[in-house]
Amino acid sequence: MRQTIIRSWLLIGSVATTFGAAAASTATHDDHGMLGFSAANAAAQRSLEQRFDAQLDPADLRAWLKQMSSEPNQVGSPHDKANAEFMLAKFREWGWDAHIETFDVLYPTPKKVALELLGPKPYMALLNEPEVAGDATSAIRDGALPPYNIYGGDGDVSATLVYANYGMPDDYKELARRGIDVRGKIVLTRYGGGWRGLKPKLAQQHGAIGCLIYSDPHEDGYAQGDVYPKGGWRPAQGVQRGSVADMQVYPGDPLTPGIGSTPGAKRLALKDATTLLKIPVLPISYGDATPLLQSLTGPVAPQGWRGALPLTYHIGPSTAKVHMTVASDWGQKPVYDVIAVMKGSTAPDQWIVRGNHHDGWVFGAWDPLAGNIALMAEAKAIGGLVKQGWRPQRTLVYASWDGEEPGLLGSTEWAETHAAELQQKAVLYLNSDTNGRGILGAGGSHSLQHLVNEVADGVIDPETHVSVRERLRAHMRVEAAGGASPEAKMDAKLAAEGGDLPIEALGSGSDFSAFLEHLGIASLDLGFGGEDDNAGIYHSRYDSFDHYIRFGDPTFVYGTTLAKVAGHIVLRSADADVLPMRFGDFSQQLDRYVDELHKLVDATRKATAEQHELLDSHAFELDADPQHAIAPPARESDVPSIDLTALDAASRKLDRSAQAFEAAYAGRAQTSFNLSSAQKRDVNRRMAAMEQALGDPDGLPGRAWFKHMIYAPGMLTGYDVKTVPGVREAIEGRRWDELARYTQVTADVIDRYRAQLDQLTAALKK
Amino acid sequence: MRQTIIRSWLLIGSVATTFGAAAASTATHDDHGMLGFSAANAAAQRSLEQRFDAQLDPADLRAWLKQMSSEPNQVGSPHDKANAEFMLAKFREWGWDAHIETFDVLYPTPKKVALELLGPKPYMALLNEPEVAGDATSAIRDGALPPYNIYGGDGDVSATLVYANYGMPDDYKELARRGIDVRGKIVLTRYGGGWRGLKPKLAQQHGAIGCLIYSDPHEDGYAQGDVYPKGGWRPAQGVQRGSVADMQVYPGDPLTPGIGSTPGAKRLALKDATTLLKIPVLPISYGDATPLLQSLTGPVAPQGWRGALPLTYHIGPSTAKVHMTVASDWGQKPVYDVIAVMKGSTAPDQWIVRGNHHDGWVFGAWDPLAGNIALMAEAKAIGGLVKQGWRPQRTLVYASWDGEEPGLLGSTEWAETHAAELQQKAVLYLNSDTNGRGILGAGGSHSLQHLVNEVADGVIDPETHVSVRERLRAHMRVEAAGGASPEAKMDAKLAAEGGDLPIEALGSGSDFSAFLEHLGIASLDLGFGGEDDNAGIYHSRYDSFDHYIRFGDPTFVYGTTLAKVAGHIVLRSADADVLPMRFGDFSQQLDRYVDELHKLVDATRKATAEQHELLDSHAFELDADPQHAIAPPARESDVPSIDLTALDAASRKLDRSAQAFEAAYAGRAQTSFNLSSAQKRDVNRRMAAMEQALGDPDGLPGRAWFKHMIYAPGMLTGYDVKTVPGVREAIEGRRWDELARYTQVTADVIDRYRAQLDQLTAALKK
Repeated sequence: MRQTIIRSWLLIGSVATTFGAAAASTATHDDHGMLGFSAANAAAQRSLEQRFDAQLDPADLRAWLKQMSSEPNQVGSPHDKANAEFMLAKFREWGWDAHIETFDVLYPTPKKVALELLGPKPYMALLNEPEVAGDATSAIRDGALPPYNIYGGDGDVSATLVYANYGMPDDYKELARRGIDVRGKIVLTRYGGGWRGLKPKLAQQHGAIGCLIYSDPHEDGYAQGDVYPKGGWRPAQGVQRGSVADMQVYPGDPLTPGIGSTPGAKRLALKDATTLLKIPVLPISYGDATPLLQSLTGPVAPQGWRGALPLTYHIGPSTAKVHMTVASDWGQKPVYDVIAVMKGSTAPDQWIVRGNHHDGWVFGAWDPLAGNIALMAEAKAIGGLVKQGWRPQRTLVYASWDGEEPGLLGSTEWAETHAAELQQKAVLYLNSDTNGRGILGAGGSHSLQHLVNEVADGVIDPETHVSVRERLRAHMRVEAAGGASPEAKMDAKLAAEGGDLPIEALGSGSDFSAFLEHLGIASLDLGFGGEDDNAGIYHSRYDSFDHYIRFGDPTFVYGTTLAKVAGHIVLRSADADVLPMRFGDFSQQLDRYVDELHKLVDATRKATAEQHELLDSHAFELDADPQHAIAPPARESDVPSIDLTALDAASRKLDRSAQAFEAAYAGRAQTSFNLSSAQKRDVNRRMAAMEQALGDPDGLPGRAWFKHMIYAPGMLTGYDVKTVPGVREAIEGRRWDELARYTQVTADVIDRYRAQLDQLTAALKK
Repeated sequence: MRQTIIRSWLLIGSVATTFGAAAASTATHDDHGMLGFSAANAAAQRSLEQRFDAQLDPADLRAWLKQMSSEPNQVGSPHDKANAEFMLAKFREWGWDAHIETFDVLYPTPKKVALELLGPKPYMALLNEPEVAGDATSAIRDGALPPYNIYGGDGDVSATLVYANYGMPDDYKELARRGIDVRGKIVLTRYGGGWRGLKPKLAQQHGAIGCLIYSDPHEDGYAQGDVYPKGGWRPAQGVQRGSVADMQVYPGDPLTPGIGSTPGAKRLALKDATTLLKIPVLPISYGDATPLLQSLTGPVAPQGWRGALPLTYHIGPSTAKVHMTVASDWGQKPVYDVIAVMKGSTAPDQWIVRGNHHDGWVFGAWDPLAGNIALMAEAKAIGGLVKQGWRPQRTLVYASWDGEEPGLLGSTEWAETHAAELQQKAVLYLNSDTNGRGILGAGGSHSLQHLVNEVADGVIDPETHVSVRERLRAHMRVEAAGGASPEAKMDAKLAAEGGDLPIEALGSGSDFSAFLEHLGIASLDLGFGGEDDNAGIYHSRYDSFDHYIRFGDPTFVYGTTLAKVAGHIVLRSADADVLPMRFGDFSQQLDRYVDELHKLVDATRKATAEQHELLDSHAFELDADPQHAIAPPARESDVPSIDLTALDAASRKLDRSAQAFEAAYAGRAQTSFNLSSAQKRDVNRRMAAMEQALGDPDGLPGRAWFKHMIYAPGMLTGYDVKTVPGVREAIEGRRWDELARYTQVTADVIDRYRAQLDQLTAALKK
């Protein structure tokens, strides 16, 4: 589901820990250091990793990708089930204890979609992606669905059209300043600027009766590069499908929030499912959007609203009406999660969970199969190691999820079904999704930051022949040179110092959400990208094998490189004497987030004062062109006195506890982790449970499913993370009472985390 | 010639003086304050201004514009001469002592221009602007020249094509990193990013054999607004003509640098005129550019290089060749300056010079006639005042220049011819050029900043009915809200404080250059804009009366408003007891420039260190996509120890002298300027000569014509100013020896200025 966004990850970049940097320098100088391993065990582990790597074969990945992307494989398609069964057989062949776990989920499919422009220059939208020369699967229609946005409402509406840019909150402010109301109208938005599902949701909130989302060539077409098949970018009739469920409230089956959609589960009535839209929505191509944009009159769109089509973008409304129809079959469909287990030898009740989804929107070669084949390669290699006599200390659970595209269905329902067992047993969840050529993107729980760095330091980039970590370091430094954000500059500074590279905080958009944000299991998400043209065919029928081997990873060497990075993390997590987690890294990262919140408060206060001064002096009215008047912006509420001291105090106290933990851990490491088995069990159990302490049972405001108080997808960003979300979103939304409440809730969570950490430290020192 | 660039003026904005701000607050509170006038004389002057204003009639402006733009009026055209004779008659009718002063100048005109794309998809460029419905003059061909870039070389060349974005120095660095050489090729550039003439100059320096410049719709076409005739923006076949003489070295007749091109003047041979290009260059429309851009192969152009045409921009080279031909008649043509004099009663040897040009590229309704008709309205109103019995104390010289478009010919030749007399007599030069609806743009010598503010405070904006100063204040505040430059933020801060608004430093692009930068006469440049679509027809045949009355200033109220602002400045300068100049404002502004230079040195040092670190760590190589490799940038030279203390000391000493002057001036103002006539004459003579002290006889490096050491057009920006240019451009160009030399030269100039100021202060206190 997730689009490869390596560049924005790194630009938005989370901030690394100096703590981590210092310690990593040590690791760099001491090649034998391996977090959580005694020296002897580290040497054995390196040997194991070499044997693991030797079994990875790009030819396997190519063959699996070709087969699995040969037919449409969305939820409910025959090939989706066939792929699950293919993997089941493979996992079993490789020695895994595998099964398919099935959930029946709400999965609407379109019976009729139509879109036409009425009036003097009528246009009937094609809503269809034609066959493309040299793309073998592009002609296949059997089993494929037309482009649609799943979980949009049904409707048959006719209304005038308004162009609302990205359809984000700021865009509605601009419309209001121009006196343009979308009530009773159809809103035309373009992809970008925020998550897809927010566009129709906000349109609906503002009173629109329909919503269209198109791919402008500015972000996703010829303005980025040559279009398919000459280049990899989106052609004129290419459409980005995708879910518009309100996943910021809860992902998974819309009818079973918080519980597994097992046969006997209590399901909501359709009308009570709060994540479902009421208005119809359709994704369209820029070919289909062009006549609609040409039909608009009214003011010329502001500079930042204009795309790359050869026309003057107007806001509207149109004089002619647009007629759109969406009628769906609102039945259930099965999702097939393939679950493969390799039981641990000494700690079978500690699970390392590794997942990637297998359902696509059509053929899904890039998204998700390019990541899924890396996971398969890991499973095959691990099977090979087992056949050589090795067994993991901890249990490995490899999962290929179904139904990620419509709303993280397979992973969420599985996690909800097995919630109690997972919270007891899961040590970490390691996710991947689409994969391409280029630079490692790594996000996740910051207690795992050093593990990621150590592993990335030991895997060689197939094209530059330095470690993938050194390549990422160079990338962060070059990207931040010149005009980058303060955060990116700080990342680059840390990168230049030679220590650990920061990993990104996770929002949503892939299958880690339920594990990290609902269950509180430390999670990671990995993928390579930045040197490919994935954006151009994202969620279209051109996301194909033929596209991937031209514009993706033609020789599958980045597929095997992803398998190495993910596999080494899995193997080290499985075999470490003491789990490879550094809570000091988390504590340092939290300090930075708290610092960001103070800066956000200051900036909000300053911007509010500036706006009020401009309003009070009538500067907006005087500056405005009387012939094309734009009203002043609505007056922002005053910023009251804001007290973040509870958060400051909690993070300061955590710093001290984290330092004590790291000292104790380092002390144990120097004595080769000479703990008794019972002690190790106790320490590891406590470590695995740490992340759960960051959850609050009542969850975030208005979305109790999201328990994690440090990482969440933004309510108004969708996939992109908001860190310390209870506090940050209250400031951004100017909800001052909520801010006070969640400052305390978050501080309490951090205090509980600290208390657990102190107990862990004590257990380590015993 | 100058394009209306109000928004960028204000964004780049010079920084105001706190000194000025404080004093202006006083003026605001005391309505009777008028700089340089006793209270009694101020009251009389206000009454005079009201009588002046009453004689301004928008109907006059409309009639003059319609007549003067009815036929092509470029240099050498019959209508250009007719316009001069028309004005001569009018000035005389209005009671002025007027004559036409003629200079014969090098003025090449095209005999043949042609452009074709060869190869498998041949295309013959139209190079022609078709008739447009509703534009009465667009069909007139008699007397018009084809679109061309005057002072480009002749040539008939065939070569492959390379796209070089704006054709500026940074663009060539990007080409070099991609291994693309323009030697022996034709370079395709787009307008924007720097002055037109630099594009072929840099192409020639890099070895190209031809250069094309096109208007991309991103900057100048449908991406900005509806195109003509639906809206005001450039249609597909619209072409921006313009000069490509190397005016940063010297403007005026290329054959008579530094002297008037009078009949007996010694003229250079064509081959020795250093401001002439050697290679052919042609301006083309985006209609004609499209097939050329489509012919390009090679790498996809970097993000910032891509325009708004519906294609993927590649760098090239093209596989097919382009054939271009330019053949010109290199003869001389007369330019007709209309000079009208109203002799002063008590100080006839002090001149207030007011100018605007009258030649256009085709019909020139916007550029320059919209400004020229304001000047005519002023002259008519002044004539009316004279008929009522008033006479100015000082002499007024109203000038309508010819030949501005090819290279500031008429003003430069006149200024060079009368250099000695002007340096003795001219108090200030007040320029305007094109004019439109909107916000006042004001630039000039900072000793005149307070005068501009006082006058702008007393002229009412015709659409918002507040003073044009308050409207500009609102504009500066709103524009700087959000993400503006530190300079714009500082401007907005000063604007918010309620005092004087900063005026912009002047670069070039209009007729003030010779007066300010060659002769050292304090100068101003004024115009309204920002709410019109001038950009869309700039230097095209659609710059017409019909366009102006739809998209310019339909009721000509901004024309009369410009006449009020300019007229009041002229009248106050003519009648002040003591000249309305504040050298304290200049001194404060200079402090800011010196501060900027220190910051520039620091930033250069930091950027250099960063680049060297990235190069030394091979970050560029490691980050680059091996499949589309981009070489690291060339290593910048080390930044040595830099010593600006001479400049610091000179500006600090000037601060003290300026404070003493302002105190002495204020003291005299409090006693109603009770000086003897001889004292007044002495003081005013000294004041008028102050600006000349900012000149150095040897001028700027490599361009001795430019004497002013504080204001100059940038060698690599063209029209845009570089303040303290000897120092700033040496830093930017990393010419460290030159930097040391010009730090001293500039400090010496400031010291001489200070010494003159001290003498002036002493004269005031006598």
